[in-house]
Amino acid sequence: MSQTVSYQPEPTLLAAIDFYFDFSSPYGYLASELIDALGTRFGRQVNWHSVLLGAAFKATGATLPVRQPLKSDYFLHDFARSARFHAVPFVQPMKFPLSTQHAARAFLWLGERDPLAARGLAHAIFRAYFTAGRDIDNIDTVLDIAASLGHTRAPLAEALSSVALKERLHIEVDRALARGVFGSPFFIVDGETFWGVDRLPQLERWLEEGSF
Amino acid sequence: MSQTVSYQPEPTLLAAIDFYFDFSSPYGYLASELIDALGTRFGRQVNWHSVLLGAAFKATGATLPVRQPLKSDYFLHDFARSARFHAVPFVQPMKFPLSTQHAARAFLWLGERDPLAARGLAHAIFRAYFTAGRDIDNIDTVLDIAASLGHTRAPLAEALSSVALKERLHIEVDRALARGVFGSPFFIVDGETFWGVDRLPQLERWLEEGSF
Repeated sequence: MSQTVSYQPEPTLLAAIDFYFDFSSPYGYLASELIDALGTRFGRQVNWHSVLLGAAFKATGATLPVRQPLKSDYFLHDFARSARFHAVPFVQPMKFPLSTQHAARAFLWLGERDPLAARGLAHAIFRAYFTAGRDIDNIDTVLDIAASLGHTRAPLAEALSSVALKERLHIEVDRALARGVFGSPFFIVDGETFWGVDRLPQLERWLEEGSF
Repeated sequence: MSQTVSYQPEPTLLAAIDFYFDFSSPYGYLASELIDALGTRFGRQVNWHSVLLGAAFKATGATLPVRQPLKSDYFLHDFARSARFHAVPFVQPMKFPLSTQHAARAFLWLGERDPLAARGLAHAIFRAYFTAGRDIDNIDTVLDIAASLGHTRAPLAEALSSVALKERLHIEVDRALARGVFGSPFFIVDGETFWGVDRLPQLERWLEEGSF
């Protein structure tokens, strides 16, 4: 009995989806609750990147919609409606928007050690802000959230007050800007860019068909 | 044999969908190719309103995305991709954006006489601009398009040069601004507002469920 050796093609290594978000972005929060399932469905890893929108807004000359007359009421309404549309729990925080550098630095620091744990922290921060209205601008709140997930307070607290981590986040944000990221959520896959949670249907089509 | 008289409820009179657009808006054009089918599916009349975005942009302090660094490349790419996504023919016009007051006035003038014909003119203007790159900023182009649909040139030409029509469009735009319209496309139905062709799925959900 002869033994045939069949040709086994290498499994195609699909490029990851880069997911950029700012912790104060409601649509970024919605995307954070949806993107991993999409990645899993299409065998794509999702790499999470927390960015600071302030830098991007300075680069584009944009102002936050909630700071623009006429638009602010619409957007506050749309945040909550979009959350219901996607069946994601959402409560508009009173303090909005807010600075997210502590949250972004904590995410970056943990991600350098344990990317999966960092994703857990990102979910916890987003949910603390967008379902419980917690003040994630406060460094102690960020430390409390991390501690509630079992992370030791002291090393993170030390990192959050270090210049080195601040610098590394700065580099990350610059890198994102250089890739064309100007809003949250922002997705890049196969060199294709998608801005907004409302582009998930197009991202999905892209993952399905390779291109369209 | 007794005859029962069954109670016949009045047919529910469903409110119309107000559809606001600017003739230089690519997403407004895409919406113009999609909204009537949605209205028909749910038994809703669609009332078309051409507005001038310049006025709304002045009121909100917004600038056109294509005039912002970083964003312009993204948007040019997204216009075409969104058109493919919705299977609507689209060719990015070289002259973009442009002034749309002649087109908007022609639409308004015809709409005062024959709303259905005005809708036909709107389709023709949008398609002339977004599939054939015609210069709809030019008053003669607008007249040519109207003439190609069988409308007599002279009365429209006279109206387009009148102060009265200019004034009436001004009032229309102010009325739209007063209702909260700040972009194109913009939809209002049952007092609920939706901005963007990417809100059509939420508008559809609204029409299906009454509210969500």
